[in-house]
Amino acid sequence: MAKEITSRNENYSQWYNDIVIKAGLADYSAVRGCMIIKPYGYAVWEKIQAQLDRMFKETGHQNAYFPLFIPKSFFSREASHVEGFAKECAVVTHYRLKNDASGMGIVVDEDARLEEELIVRPTSETIIWNTYKSWIQSYRDLPILINQWANVVRWEMRTRLFLRTTEFLWQEGHTAHATRQEAVEEAERMINVYAQFAREWMAMPVIMGRKSEAERFAGAVDTYSIEALMQDGKALQAGTSHFLGQNFAKAFDVKFLNSEGALDYVWATSWGVSTRLIGALIMAHSDDNGLVLPPKLAPTQVVFVPIYKSREELDRISSVVSQLRNELHAVGVTTHYDDRDNYKPGFKFAEYEMKGFPIRIAIGPKDLENGTVEVARRDTLQKQIVSSNSLGKFIIGLLDDIQNNLFSKALEFQRQNTTVVNSYDEFKSVIAGKGGFVLAHWDGTPETEAIIKDETKATIRCIPFDSKPEEGKCIVTGKPSMQRALFAQAY
Amino acid sequence: MAKEITSRNENYSQWYNDIVIKAGLADYSAVRGCMIIKPYGYAVWEKIQAQLDRMFKETGHQNAYFPLFIPKSFFSREASHVEGFAKECAVVTHYRLKNDASGMGIVVDEDARLEEELIVRPTSETIIWNTYKSWIQSYRDLPILINQWANVVRWEMRTRLFLRTTEFLWQEGHTAHATRQEAVEEAERMINVYAQFAREWMAMPVIMGRKSEAERFAGAVDTYSIEALMQDGKALQAGTSHFLGQNFAKAFDVKFLNSEGALDYVWATSWGVSTRLIGALIMAHSDDNGLVLPPKLAPTQVVFVPIYKSREELDRISSVVSQLRNELHAVGVTTHYDDRDNYKPGFKFAEYEMKGFPIRIAIGPKDLENGTVEVARRDTLQKQIVSSNSLGKFIIGLLDDIQNNLFSKALEFQRQNTTVVNSYDEFKSVIAGKGGFVLAHWDGTPETEAIIKDETKATIRCIPFDSKPEEGKCIVTGKPSMQRALFAQAY
Repeated sequence: MAKEITSRNENYSQWYNDIVIKAGLADYSAVRGCMIIKPYGYAVWEKIQAQLDRMFKETGHQNAYFPLFIPKSFFSREASHVEGFAKECAVVTHYRLKNDASGMGIVVDEDARLEEELIVRPTSETIIWNTYKSWIQSYRDLPILINQWANVVRWEMRTRLFLRTTEFLWQEGHTAHATRQEAVEEAERMINVYAQFAREWMAMPVIMGRKSEAERFAGAVDTYSIEALMQDGKALQAGTSHFLGQNFAKAFDVKFLNSEGALDYVWATSWGVSTRLIGALIMAHSDDNGLVLPPKLAPTQVVFVPIYKSREELDRISSVVSQLRNELHAVGVTTHYDDRDNYKPGFKFAEYEMKGFPIRIAIGPKDLENGTVEVARRDTLQKQIVSSNSLGKFIIGLLDDIQNNLFSKALEFQRQNTTVVNSYDEFKSVIAGKGGFVLAHWDGTPETEAIIKDETKATIRCIPFDSKPEEGKCIVTGKPSMQRALFAQAY
Repeated sequence: MAKEITSRNENYSQWYNDIVIKAGLADYSAVRGCMIIKPYGYAVWEKIQAQLDRMFKETGHQNAYFPLFIPKSFFSREASHVEGFAKECAVVTHYRLKNDASGMGIVVDEDARLEEELIVRPTSETIIWNTYKSWIQSYRDLPILINQWANVVRWEMRTRLFLRTTEFLWQEGHTAHATRQEAVEEAERMINVYAQFAREWMAMPVIMGRKSEAERFAGAVDTYSIEALMQDGKALQAGTSHFLGQNFAKAFDVKFLNSEGALDYVWATSWGVSTRLIGALIMAHSDDNGLVLPPKLAPTQVVFVPIYKSREELDRISSVVSQLRNELHAVGVTTHYDDRDNYKPGFKFAEYEMKGFPIRIAIGPKDLENGTVEVARRDTLQKQIVSSNSLGKFIIGLLDDIQNNLFSKALEFQRQNTTVVNSYDEFKSVIAGKGGFVLAHWDGTPETEAIIKDETKATIRCIPFDSKPEEGKCIVTGKPSMQRALFAQAY
């Protein structure tokens, strides 16, 4: 395997691409903007899916599946939704191909034109609310708490593996409620689920908050997001949860008989995270040696590499490894044994560093004599000699330690790169210099937000839930502000 | 809930649709031929997925994800594949919509026409083999054992919920091998995995065999299938596994350096099952009271229904149910407690019969006194009074018994509806009369097969792997035949 990747300092963007490709997470495809998620990348996605799915079910949600295609006219129903979503998308216009009359391949059969074009879903609010109309009559049919795991397509002009692709995989929750308060609570519950997942599973600190009007989801009354800080000082929106009010219920005429016997429109939320999380995971922890994965999301947590000269040595090592692996499996640790004979240990070490296996265990003849193994942790690259007795307990502790260390390191990075500023000059100098999150007063208008974006490329990531009310003046207009907003340049 | 469904005798096809809708498995959508898989139906699919995924991983496969879109030209590469798949499909021609100049909604932006049309995948051999080209250089890169869980689209003219829909969910395995033998073994291994899954998990007996040339997958050298018999005497193809030879490797120029240092084309297989399995599951076991699910695939295995007059009685019952549910969860049984106060027990009984919960447990005041519960099994509708002591052990045994009984019953049905015939008159009379599987001698030619299909609507489902060599004469042409083929009218 080609070991070298571009360093972060040299070219952060190239470093990211190198890791995606060389760790075997994803590959470019023959279709513009669409990626291939390779087995190792998909295994990370399966880990993410499994845990999120558990958390969704624990909070009362069920999975379902709605059509890939949405009739074009559905997008026109919700006024702001059409502006946000119905523009750059894949349009199905025909349903048949035929042999070219001149015998040169196949062509679209113009006789098979659809009466109404179908849009490949960029998000499913419209088709789902059109369906909910027939499922909801009374308050007894509510709440509906549904999630969907699906692929979606947004015709992006500039794409990046995992971060922004034309097709991506995601989950989208779509819930229906009898009251405004219940829907707001649901939207808040799910942004908290995302934050908990980011922190505890991805070892990635996030700031939770409310989006400004300009950054809100097209069709939402309120959008909440979790925002993470990447190592290059740019922010990444990692998940969003929307309180949709009665907008989609009104657009699709979804009314219900409430407990007092009156007709009312249904209240809605939607919320989603995507394969973009894998991009966030890569950028949050990895280094110039390759990918670094938190143990809770690593497809394989421990790799064993034998160090041997003879077949006989290998056999003795293999027998010990087999016992140790059984011991680790019994305590829920996933392992791999790399006994390939055609690669040297040094090559294997570099490969597992590139792929971000949290722990590497090397065993040689001396270890057999001493009853030890050499344990190397990926996060700090430190090695230590450990007794192979009760290895299970040691590894469990070490995996915990790595998980916690990754989170602490990322949290410390976030703290060091969050700056409170009180003037626009200071704002501009931080954004142009060290970057990171900037907390600043803002007068609450889209106009000021647009000026800042235009002049600095920084946007309001969110108004953090935990930001204290604090009197101040907008850094641009000097108008009064009651709370700081979180700014950053963002992916 | 509306209890009544059409009986099988009255209208089998309507009975099927009634069950799908009234058991809450799926719903029609606003998009022609596309269905909505409702939470209960999706929960069955999740059970199917989980077990198949385990079996795929146990046989060495990894999951990955390839693009939804396939460039039109890819289909022309493999001559027979284009005939089979590139005709009735969804064609993406544009990537943008715009506001209509007259202000009436949105229209396709003719300036955003794709240079080459994209086809929504009907199956992924072409895009995957185009990718494998860059992944395979030497025999050391082989085998590649990849599976994909995905949605696919085939523009069907006549659709049926689960059985034939324009969009459906499936898995497609795509493997690459260094030798012909290894690929043949893989194709055989996977049809055996499907057969094992059908028998042990779906409680559905299947006949495994090889397809005739006419029924083969477009692009395959050999197609193996599992065929199940439905209660109306029609066959249903439940899964296929294809030995693709070097056809796709040649079409996409995928060569590798073998261990002798020579260049050779790679050998391939592909194999898949889809949400159609849910249709098979419904038709294999259900009755005029509704859905019957095998315990191993039932989203919830046991439902508790309290029988009470007063709030105080309900509280006492709830407390006992809580203990019993804990006991059942501890031994891995899934349960639900329906303590809804606004529905009568009789209504609930009918609802869980409709939804096919394998076991229903009713508890009333008399049961509390006697330390008993009333256990009703869905398959036979029999009830019995059982001591609530060590209920876990009893339920485990009963679930096993139900699973086995469903299989035995279906196997007995298949035996009684498999007829060995020796003349074309007999063949026609069986097909037109009792239906079912018919084993008959056939001269092996597509011409004879076409005559039979034309005259009787019966097709060759497969040439069973376990059919004994036996000299005979083709029922149509009288030409010599060495083996009987399995015929049936099919879904």
